Amino acid sequence: MGSFDLVNSNGNLFNPEEFRKQAYQVVDFIANYYTQIESYPVLSQVKPGDIRNQLPNTAPSQSESLQAILKDITNVIIPGMTHWQSPNFFAFFPNNVSTAALLGEMLCTGFNCPGFSWQVSPAITELEMVVMDWLANMINLPKSFLFSGGSGTGGGIIQNTTSDAIIMTLHAARDRAIKKIGTENMLKLVVYGSDQTHSTFEKVSKAMGINPNNIRLIPTVMEKGRPFSMCPLKLRKEIENDVAKGLVPLYLCGSVGTTSTNAVDPLEQLADVATEYGMWFHVDAAYAGSACICPEFQHFFNGIERADSVSMNPHKWLLTGLGCCCLWVKRSDLIVKAMRVEPEYLKNEWSSTTESNPVVNFKDWQLGASRKFNSIRLWIVLRSHGVENLQNHIRSDVQMVADFEMFVKSDPRFEIVVPRLFALVCFRLINPNNNNSEDANELLNRKLLDFVNSSGKIYVSHTIVGGIYMLRFCVGTMLTEECHIIAAWKLIQEGATQLLKN
Amino acid sequence: MGSFDLVNSNGNLFNPEEFRKQAYQVVDFIANYYTQIESYPVLSQVKPGDIRNQLPNTAPSQSESLQAILKDITNVIIPGMTHWQSPNFFAFFPNNVSTAALLGEMLCTGFNCPGFSWQVSPAITELEMVVMDWLANMINLPKSFLFSGGSGTGGGIIQNTTSDAIIMTLHAARDRAIKKIGTENMLKLVVYGSDQTHSTFEKVSKAMGINPNNIRLIPTVMEKGRPFSMCPLKLRKEIENDVAKGLVPLYLCGSVGTTSTNAVDPLEQLADVATEYGMWFHVDAAYAGSACICPEFQHFFNGIERADSVSMNPHKWLLTGLGCCCLWVKRSDLIVKAMRVEPEYLKNEWSSTTESNPVVNFKDWQLGASRKFNSIRLWIVLRSHGVENLQNHIRSDVQMVADFEMFVKSDPRFEIVVPRLFALVCFRLINPNNNNSEDANELLNRKLLDFVNSSGKIYVSHTIVGGIYMLRFCVGTMLTEECHIIAAWKLIQEGATQLLKN
Repeated sequence: MGSFDLVNSNGNLFNPEEFRKQAYQVVDFIANYYTQIESYPVLSQVKPGDIRNQLPNTAPSQSESLQAILKDITNVIIPGMTHWQSPNFFAFFPNNVSTAALLGEMLCTGFNCPGFSWQVSPAITELEMVVMDWLANMINLPKSFLFSGGSGTGGGIIQNTTSDAIIMTLHAARDRAIKKIGTENMLKLVVYGSDQTHSTFEKVSKAMGINPNNIRLIPTVMEKGRPFSMCPLKLRKEIENDVAKGLVPLYLCGSVGTTSTNAVDPLEQLADVATEYGMWFHVDAAYAGSACICPEFQHFFNGIERADSVSMNPHKWLLTGLGCCCLWVKRSDLIVKAMRVEPEYLKNEWSSTTESNPVVNFKDWQLGASRKFNSIRLWIVLRSHGVENLQNHIRSDVQMVADFEMFVKSDPRFEIVVPRLFALVCFRLINPNNNNSEDANELLNRKLLDFVNSSGKIYVSHTIVGGIYMLRFCVGTMLTEECHIIAAWKLIQEGATQLLKN
Repeated sequence: MGSFDLVNSNGNLFNPEEFRKQAYQVVDFIANYYTQIESYPVLSQVKPGDIRNQLPNTAPSQSESLQAILKDITNVIIPGMTHWQSPNFFAFFPNNVSTAALLGEMLCTGFNCPGFSWQVSPAITELEMVVMDWLANMINLPKSFLFSGGSGTGGGIIQNTTSDAIIMTLHAARDRAIKKIGTENMLKLVVYGSDQTHSTFEKVSKAMGINPNNIRLIPTVMEKGRPFSMCPLKLRKEIENDVAKGLVPLYLCGSVGTTSTNAVDPLEQLADVATEYGMWFHVDAAYAGSACICPEFQHFFNGIERADSVSMNPHKWLLTGLGCCCLWVKRSDLIVKAMRVEPEYLKNEWSSTTESNPVVNFKDWQLGASRKFNSIRLWIVLRSHGVENLQNHIRSDVQMVADFEMFVKSDPRFEIVVPRLFALVCFRLINPNNNNSEDANELLNRKLLDFVNSSGKIYVSHTIVGGIYMLRFCVGTMLTEECHIIAAWKLIQEGATQLLKN
């Protein structure tokens, strides 16, 4: 093994000692980044073109040093970043990470094996089966979604984003439907979500060739109890309409925790409708699924046993880093039937999943061929933290948002627009002189948002639902503590005072 | 900033000192993995279930130590891996990595920012624009594919796999076509590739709702000069046939370097056909595109200026680590028109790409919302190595395969089936007693493949093209040196001797 200590003849592409030295420096750089993260504006204050203008037009012909690169990252890149890991980041949903996730990613890239079929790296496939079962158990999914102990066709896969989960399940659903109604009737198929379903649902449906006229987004309203959730009666009416027109219901996407306000659709009643019309029923719990590792949140999943598939993204709230969307299905055989294409060059002793060969080949569960060793990241996150610490992390975030909600409630100038669910509160400032003019209130809150975000001290985002413009305050980074919530609230109050004075 | 030295109240989710300590250990672990990589069987020798059976059924409730995790990786995971970074890996195409790629991935995950729109991390978008222009220049793409200095609608994006590139371009092509022919005629659209086009083309086309009867894979043959490349005459004939039937040609996928044998389609002549029938012309150069950073290989791209889009995967042969597929398009406006869905919660001052607001928002160039900071990885790879070293790396691999080809040619028991292109050679063993029976030769070469792969010493893969079963020997890992080629050839010869004796 002596040759590894030397620069190898292949241009020193990898020398373990050099790697060790440089990687230590990058570790230090990341550690320093986190100690300084609060000193950067959370929302980058650069203007379009500012970063590009500082960088050369062509790649260097000669090797540059790590020092030069890190210097540019400090001087050029970091000022152009919006810092999602800042403890003062309260926008959108979080995309959090943790030490364990970083270590997992290092190993994933260190091994750099594409586990497209079982044989080309058995541990990638089998570890993924194990952790998907672990996580399914943690969020209390029924055994029918597991590899072990269920029907034999259940199981899960790690993908990049929710769009992958929709692609795969919609494809399987349509493949099954076409066998009944014939390819010539493909354009009669209809998919259903609500106007609060994540926008990727509409986007993916269009890209997958669902007739653009057949994508139904059921309007939601600010009703008590279940604000902005999908109404099963309205859904049924829409479907009856479609069926009367000769269309064919195909796919229903329910949500547990919508992006705007964390609305939760009534899964049991939606399942009734889906069953009646023979639709594939998918549940998107991208953000809120993580909360379901705590028993007190699992009731939001009531009815999930009747879904055909469920997806959630540990990369949002479960400390795993980006690119970790978990999808579970009951009938993986339908997925494989729709997805499987086996060119000769990928064939091997174990490459065909059949009844007599139950080996999982994840290439048949996704569109692309190659795939990263993402399971090692999730595995290390679950083991390093342990289930109880992960539950505490969720509960701590929820508690901080509950405190924030109390602050808002205690200031009569503000209004909670949608009751808090999970770790998100939707609120707005009201100017009594606006006489309930939505336009005036919207303008006021746009100004408030601009005031807090352009300060660089915190980053909050907004939405409009039911015609109401509101601010969204969501807690979820690994560094956020009570003191950050208090400071954020003070800044928001300061903005309100200034704006109402003018 | 003192609080960072302490365990924070949020359950110590990130403590920079603890991170530093643990990350150093993982760096050491990876460095050690590489020093020992030749001691592991290249192709894992485990049986299905071997890994799962060693792992518990449920996640631990309490935190586990890094030591315990690394021990399991050593004892359970590594024996279950097929080592793609081993210098003795010659199967499929490489998926290589390098120190620079590892450092880039650490920073990407360290920052963990999803750059879905410009504002949510301007540096992610702008650095991606810069490196995509860099790489386009390196492979000599015309300016029309660049952000800078071209038509104003050109540009590139980093995606995960070739399937993403096909999704995006096929979607844009269909969206444009439907505006002309009407949604009701969607099922008349036809897509064209060859029987050597990567299988993801067929898979993605089906998933995207292209009529499964309208996916044409033009048969190729072992002709001299351009073995297994798409014949423009055959293509034209097929299209004429389709048009006569009232069908509508939509999309043509050409290849520079097919997966089985590295066949190169005649781009100029294919472009003639595509232009004549108003088709979108995409060029997939997943593997061989990397070679085009060397001027002597750029002639394979002759005609590329007439393509609508080009994709290549630096994660295969350009030392960047998995998940780096680069796609360039001339008409990004068509992509954005097809892709753009803008929910309120994602709107901001810069979120709409229009003529008056030329800011790029990559969410409109892909299906999913979130995306990783992959450009930092590619940027660090290009800067750390520099263009000349990267060219040397390609040339060195090509030279090693040329040597291997010479070895094969010098042994009369073997035959080169397809002349070497780039760093792949396709060959087979011939038993003169087989009297040219393809079945007998196939069996012989299957046995030879099994002999070398089950030895654990090297990993080679196979294909069948034009009815001929052949072995594929491809060089591309960062550690492979001449000595590994020599040893691999000796092993193959040894297998041949044993098999021909029996």
